Amino acid sequence: MAPASSRRYFDWAAAAPPERHGSPEEYSLGNPSSLHAEGRAARTALEEARARCARVLGVKAEELFFTSGGTESNAIVLFSLLSRIRSRRGAELLYSAVEHPSVGENAAVLSRLGIACTAIPVEKDGRVSMETLKRTLVKNPAPRMAAIMAVNNETGAINDIKALGAVLGEGTKTREERDGAPETPLVFLHCDVVQAAGKIPLDLPGGGADSASLSAHKIGGSRGIGLLWLKRPLFPLIRGGGQEGGIRPGTENTAGALALAEALESRLGSSLAGAREEAAARMKALMGALRGTGRFLPIPADREDDDPRFSPWILQGAFMNGEEKIIPGELLVRALDERGFALSTGSACSRGNKKRSVLEAMGAGAAALGGIRISQGWSTTMEDMETLAEAIGELCRTL
Amino acid sequence: MAPASSRRYFDWAAAAPPERHGSPEEYSLGNPSSLHAEGRAARTALEEARARCARVLGVKAEELFFTSGGTESNAIVLFSLLSRIRSRRGAELLYSAVEHPSVGENAAVLSRLGIACTAIPVEKDGRVSMETLKRTLVKNPAPRMAAIMAVNNETGAINDIKALGAVLGEGTKTREERDGAPETPLVFLHCDVVQAAGKIPLDLPGGGADSASLSAHKIGGSRGIGLLWLKRPLFPLIRGGGQEGGIRPGTENTAGALALAEALESRLGSSLAGAREEAAARMKALMGALRGTGRFLPIPADREDDDPRFSPWILQGAFMNGEEKIIPGELLVRALDERGFALSTGSACSRGNKKRSVLEAMGAGAAALGGIRISQGWSTTMEDMETLAEAIGELCRTL
Repeated sequence: MAPASSRRYFDWAAAAPPERHGSPEEYSLGNPSSLHAEGRAARTALEEARARCARVLGVKAEELFFTSGGTESNAIVLFSLLSRIRSRRGAELLYSAVEHPSVGENAAVLSRLGIACTAIPVEKDGRVSMETLKRTLVKNPAPRMAAIMAVNNETGAINDIKALGAVLGEGTKTREERDGAPETPLVFLHCDVVQAAGKIPLDLPGGGADSASLSAHKIGGSRGIGLLWLKRPLFPLIRGGGQEGGIRPGTENTAGALALAEALESRLGSSLAGAREEAAARMKALMGALRGTGRFLPIPADREDDDPRFSPWILQGAFMNGEEKIIPGELLVRALDERGFALSTGSACSRGNKKRSVLEAMGAGAAALGGIRISQGWSTTMEDMETLAEAIGELCRTL
Repeated sequence: MAPASSRRYFDWAAAAPPERHGSPEEYSLGNPSSLHAEGRAARTALEEARARCARVLGVKAEELFFTSGGTESNAIVLFSLLSRIRSRRGAELLYSAVEHPSVGENAAVLSRLGIACTAIPVEKDGRVSMETLKRTLVKNPAPRMAAIMAVNNETGAINDIKALGAVLGEGTKTREERDGAPETPLVFLHCDVVQAAGKIPLDLPGGGADSASLSAHKIGGSRGIGLLWLKRPLFPLIRGGGQEGGIRPGTENTAGALALAEALESRLGSSLAGAREEAAARMKALMGALRGTGRFLPIPADREDDDPRFSPWILQGAFMNGEEKIIPGELLVRALDERGFALSTGSACSRGNKKRSVLEAMGAGAAALGGIRISQGWSTTMEDMETLAEAIGELCRTL
């Protein structure tokens, strides 16, 4: 970012260019936990930031907790499973097989600590289907929590959280009837909305989830701040000074919270519908141009140019060279970088991990090795898309 | 902070006025985990920040991990106890009775999860003595970890970490001989240096600790960033995208890291000795002036005006009114606030907690209810001290 004029940036899913990161006045606010005037001013600013975030998200301010980002928000929810009595049979945590590492890797940690965790398989399009979820629930009738992301960070696949939440509710009802324990709470549905917020319509209060994770720096805020929305309370594992209602200890980052509020207002407000439409038009043009090369393998193969199953902000695809061989994703990314295009193969949070677990979980087959992720943002232009498609077309002939 | 000219700030232990919080260029660096030019530039900047921090602290860059702050650094170390096989007898974690809540509260959490935790009592001066530590080790011969802070955040009491580390080493040797398990690692000594860094001489590599926690915003850096120094490796509980060597997942806060490096260079460099001496002179003058009121009860009672057992940057004390009754700390803090002085009773991280557990652990008795914390910083002046002492003296006559 801060790209040289010759650079074109297609890694918005990894980090958006920051639009605001706090004024000197906001940085010099006191500790919001201090009782004196400087502390009270900081507290007022922090609660104002929370109220503004709540207004944009359509939730209650007291349901929002500032964290250090999406990764920590996910961890707080998952590790709350350690804080309560364990159930006796089946998995306690169900999570989709394509979750971000801050869910998937932590499920492995929880498993080692005795919390049974089971992955929900995804379909070829990378989404969790109602049928598969139902089958998973039959084998695991008493989960305490399910974690299903709104938009996948590598493919843009959109899950129907509301419908999946209803399935979880049904499954839980069956369990209550069988166990005769009507006071058992419904399964807690956690939703990572990091790649959905500011990109596609987001209905937190009516969307079927009980909690959601959000990161500031993906929508123009600064690093090191995010949100956790909790519709239902939970008991966090990690404690400290009691900040953020005990959900997230540590001195509050007031300047970051204010910048996040502004980013949310800017990206989730009235401009979202138009921005999404423009992104969809650009994605359609890009996919059309890429298909024109005759070397494009979208992942999944049946993704259409304007496909409601996918976020228009993220495209995953592989490319073939002149010998009809798949170009390794990393090779293509490096060659594009040399030509002025910034993009990644997949999640920045999977760097160094040669496995493409998200694409393998979708059964992407050989294409997985060639997958690159093209992620656009609000300042991406139609010309950016055309230029990128041309460059890829050329590389397909020379690599 | 950003105090009106009429305000005098004495809550540096809660938050120092930020001197630097990243330039627009630093904020707009890419995701350090991305392989393209923007990502590589961010990676270079992040590693430069790490190298600069390491140089100032006299440690290896690969031993330093950026976290969101002191609270998280402490939690990473403590919760690593969940990641390894448990020992069979006695406490696994020893922690001083006056640790920050991010240690003390988490010890309680670990206890509930089956990790036996035992508090090490402190002396009347708030410090851990070698004798008490030895006695604690006799009862708990096989601890895996000990957490002892360098400087207490409410009283300024300084622990002799090197001497205490030697005692722990001795205790562990006895255990090895007894158990015949020479490969058993020595007890891991964790040291919270949040109130020591930039304030008193700090010798991390030779100071006897195996790890240390540090917060940026206490030394002029921004909120939401800190450091964890690990001389010996540990296995973190929480996982994610593998950032920071797997120790602390989440997209790296490059701008915050660079601002932290500058804060460390500014405060831990060659200017530290002079700054500490000036702080000591101001503290001596303040304590002298407070004693002059005839109403001052230092906590502990035997703290001297220039006392090597305490950090000169923090003073805890109570005051009596005309009827020889102790003025409640919160009342005094509010009255001082109205007169333009910003200070707290104790830790900002204990807000809402009416108990003064640190002071009670020291056996401060009735004075504990009246304790206020006066914490100074590098821009505090001798005149600030005189004016504060005068204001307190006046309030002692009227409250």
